[in-house]
Amino acid sequence: MEFLASQIAELLNGTVEGDSEITVNKLSKIEEGELNSISFLANPAYQEFLYDTDASIVIVNNDLELERPVKDTCTLIRVENAYECFAKVLEAYSQAKTVVKNGIEPNSYIAKTAVLGDDVYVGAFAYIGENVKIGNNVKIYPNSFVGDNTTIGDNTIVNAGVKIYHECEIGSNCTFHSGVVIGGDGFGFAPNKENDYTKIPQLGNVIIEDHVEIGANTCVDRATMGSTIIKKGAKLDNLIQIGHNVVVGDNTVIVSQTGIAGSTKIGKNCLIGGQVGIVGHLTIADGVKIAAQSGVGYSITEEGKVVQGSPAYAMGEYKRSYVGFRKLPEILERLAELEKQIKVKDI
Amino acid sequence: MEFLASQIAELLNGTVEGDSEITVNKLSKIEEGELNSISFLANPAYQEFLYDTDASIVIVNNDLELERPVKDTCTLIRVENAYECFAKVLEAYSQAKTVVKNGIEPNSYIAKTAVLGDDVYVGAFAYIGENVKIGNNVKIYPNSFVGDNTTIGDNTIVNAGVKIYHECEIGSNCTFHSGVVIGGDGFGFAPNKENDYTKIPQLGNVIIEDHVEIGANTCVDRATMGSTIIKKGAKLDNLIQIGHNVVVGDNTVIVSQTGIAGSTKIGKNCLIGGQVGIVGHLTIADGVKIAAQSGVGYSITEEGKVVQGSPAYAMGEYKRSYVGFRKLPEILERLAELEKQIKVKDI
Amino acid sequence: MEFLASQIAELLNGTVEGDSEITVNKLSKIEEGELNSISFLANPAYQEFLYDTDASIVIVNNDLELERPVKDTCTLIRVENAYECFAKVLEAYSQAKTVVKNGIEPNSYIAKTAVLGDDVYVGAFAYIGENVKIGNNVKIYPNSFVGDNTTIGDNTIVNAGVKIYHECEIGSNCTFHSGVVIGGDGFGFAPNKENDYTKIPQLGNVIIEDHVEIGANTCVDRATMGSTIIKKGAKLDNLIQIGHNVVVGDNTVIVSQTGIAGSTKIGKNCLIGGQVGIVGHLTIADGVKIAAQSGVGYSITEEGKVVQGSPAYAMGEYKRSYVGFRKLPEILERLAELEKQIKVKDI
Repeated sequence: MEFLASQIAELLNGTVEGDSEITVNKLSKIEEGELNSISFLANPAYQEFLYDTDASIVIVNNDLELERPVKDTCTLIRVENAYECFAKVLEAYSQAKTVVKNGIEPNSYIAKTAVLGDDVYVGAFAYIGENVKIGNNVKIYPNSFVGDNTTIGDNTIVNAGVKIYHECEIGSNCTFHSGVVIGGDGFGFAPNKENDYTKIPQLGNVIIEDHVEIGANTCVDRATMGSTIIKKGAKLDNLIQIGHNVVVGDNTVIVSQTGIAGSTKIGKNCLIGGQVGIVGHLTIADGVKIAAQSGVGYSITEEGKVVQGSPAYAMGEYKRSYVGFRKLPEILERLAELEKQIKVKDI
Repeated sequence: MEFLASQIAELLNGTVEGDSEITVNKLSKIEEGELNSISFLANPAYQEFLYDTDASIVIVNNDLELERPVKDTCTLIRVENAYECFAKVLEAYSQAKTVVKNGIEPNSYIAKTAVLGDDVYVGAFAYIGENVKIGNNVKIYPNSFVGDNTTIGDNTIVNAGVKIYHECEIGSNCTFHSGVVIGGDGFGFAPNKENDYTKIPQLGNVIIEDHVEIGANTCVDRATMGSTIIKKGAKLDNLIQIGHNVVVGDNTVIVSQTGIAGSTKIGKNCLIGGQVGIVGHLTIADGVKIAAQSGVGYSITEEGKVVQGSPAYAMGEYKRSYVGFRKLPEILERLAELEKQIKVKDI
Repeated sequence: MEFLASQIAELLNGTVEGDSEITVNKLSKIEEGELNSISFLANPAYQEFLYDTDASIVIVNNDLELERPVKDTCTLIRVENAYECFAKVLEAYSQAKTVVKNGIEPNSYIAKTAVLGDDVYVGAFAYIGENVKIGNNVKIYPNSFVGDNTTIGDNTIVNAGVKIYHECEIGSNCTFHSGVVIGGDGFGFAPNKENDYTKIPQLGNVIIEDHVEIGANTCVDRATMGSTIIKKGAKLDNLIQIGHNVVVGDNTVIVSQTGIAGSTKIGKNCLIGGQVGIVGHLTIADGVKIAAQSGVGYSITEEGKVVQGSPAYAMGEYKRSYVGFRKLPEILERLAELEKQIKVKDI
């Protein structure tokens, strides 16, 4: 497939700066750009690469100011939002390339009481339990498991080896990657007299709303009672732990290996870094940003607050404290020197 | 199913305070309590909800002192331990509700040399290897794998997609959630002359004693030699890493995403928070509590010690240090001010 | 199987110190050594066990100086590198013991366009997609998934329940443990005007070179464009996250639960401890060592540097700062005392 710069500019509602007849047939990163490839520049930190790239087309922001000319072989397409537009190009390219799976492969197991929509794919060794309802255009890859009474909305993709327990409600246009576990028991045990533990039955479920993506080997526990809820548009990376009865708000993004303990409510449009821990029964306001590796021990009620540390507090203050931390050996020396001087004066 | 307050009080050996003829047909959390539901109050932090709840029955501790009357629609049942009693109610409710799986589903693989007890469930696409021995009433869900020569005790539940390697010994009344891996190789490599690594064969196994629960996607590595052992009643949350030759003591509870490196021995009745790291070859005494996100670099010999930090030390001291950490910018200012004053006096 | 001390010494090119006619038939750890077992001593911290062990043979380093005699029942074999030599003994023992799986089990799925080498094992419920190429002597255990167009080199072991997405390139002599996910989508979303996210299609792949071992439930994401690469001889422990477009250099060792964000390049021969986080778009030089639980926020350009902390810096400096951290309550007291004394002098 070959595309003209002018065709791409039209698709993206952009302006060509250079040769509108130049063609591309592949994608590249700007720092590895080859002839006949299309790339993009969104992050200003990468601007240096723009002037040396061999990419034939680079998508850039309208407001980008060139510090010097790009190569003769390079045509720019200026758009409102280069990152978003490149995603569109990728999407178009991806759709042209993807083999769409369809139909029921032999050696899958579909309970007689299950109901499947149109254009569904069920791979070999996938298991669809009793009374499961699956919408149109859903793709269930091999070795996946969907427990009894669970429902899955239209266009959702369940990759190989995903496990969804019974009685969960999965929305439309979701993507789950391999190894995801939805609806395992919450972690609840009541100590009893013998210093032993009685298991608290986990009778609730998990609700995943529409347009949610969940990364490989991430776990979302079922609620003790009621529901653990991942709201519309939330994006969860790999190896994340979501405890029972947690609520993750709309469009909140959570990076890999973060854990959220039971019953905590996270607002919408939050950005939670990797390896963060949030203790149970907290409330985190909308738009809060939490730096990677932070530990959150208290509710955060201020919208849009940015925190860091373990326990976490305002990021700017944390950074100042960390500067002090690095100076602690010096602080101890200065303190000792002051004490010596004071003593000298005493004599 | 409807239950009378008087019936529940009898089951729990409790005392009714209110209308003993009132009925419930569902469970609720106290802060979300609806009419005809039963709830409980164990955590004093939730006491405010007691006075406004619409739950028809609330289980409370005998020693709870009311600060004001509850609603007219609310009947209390007083018991010795509200949390434990509510667990009993949940358990009774759960048993009434659960569909027990039984029998061998088509498309499972059971080696001819495997021996299965009575009332066993083997789901489709589950794999039972050579010489495996499975006790009575064991439930092996779809897509699970049990390697050659492994044994599983009575009543154990192996959820969908659990992988248990060869030659492991699994006790009775255990529960493994989806994605659990038991008996993968320990992480051992000997550097050799070429600055390359020679793999140390991992020839031991894993022993899981009775009444152990292991959460989704948790990994327990097999021993290099001998056994990695999870002792009776231990509870492991999701996404935990247990290295080769580790021993986890009786009734020890480990929260999500914690990692324990090779050959470390953890005592009984310990409480280990989430995202804790414990280095290899240590010994942790009985009853030790380790705060979330701590890093333990030394053995802890004092029983019941509570530690925090990375490296971890006594929690009270850590908290005082962290107060100081937050004051570091101020400390630097005060130090500079003192130095100025001393200098002034010098002149 | 019984082996003479003299036979083993010959295998290892070592020297017998004691009874060269003594025989062993099993392996043991030095602290649990029994009669007729062979053990080794490499870590000086374990030297005390040498004098009391009941092991019949102990492999030790040539340069070990005995502080007192070992038991009469104990024969030493001195070698250049005791750990490496014991690994050889383990390997020989392991090979004698291992049952090699071979052939295609019923109930596996192999696409007609897939090509398999000689002596391949494909377990039941394993799925081999379209155009997959599998080398000689590859072992694919049950419930594994190999997506379309993926290739796997000779002698590689894919344990039960591993998921490898489409179009990945896997080398020879690799081992993947259960639950490993190779080639799941990288975590990339472009914010759009509605404060919602557009998914960036992940069109690249994963390349795993030869002699790589990857532990249970570890995830290696596919590249957005190009390849995520794990180079020759790298060893990854369990539950690790490798982001899209990351490169891990030759023979680099990464311990459990570490996460590496997108586009970061790790050099060769690095040692990265457990629960480390490394942010995206960094470069880490060859031979760098990163202490467990560290957070790396900046590129490390100095070869062989050893860092700790979050954010991480030189380990020696970090340790001195941490000494200061523990003294912060005392620092605050000393500061207050100085301020009081200065004030007194003012009056």
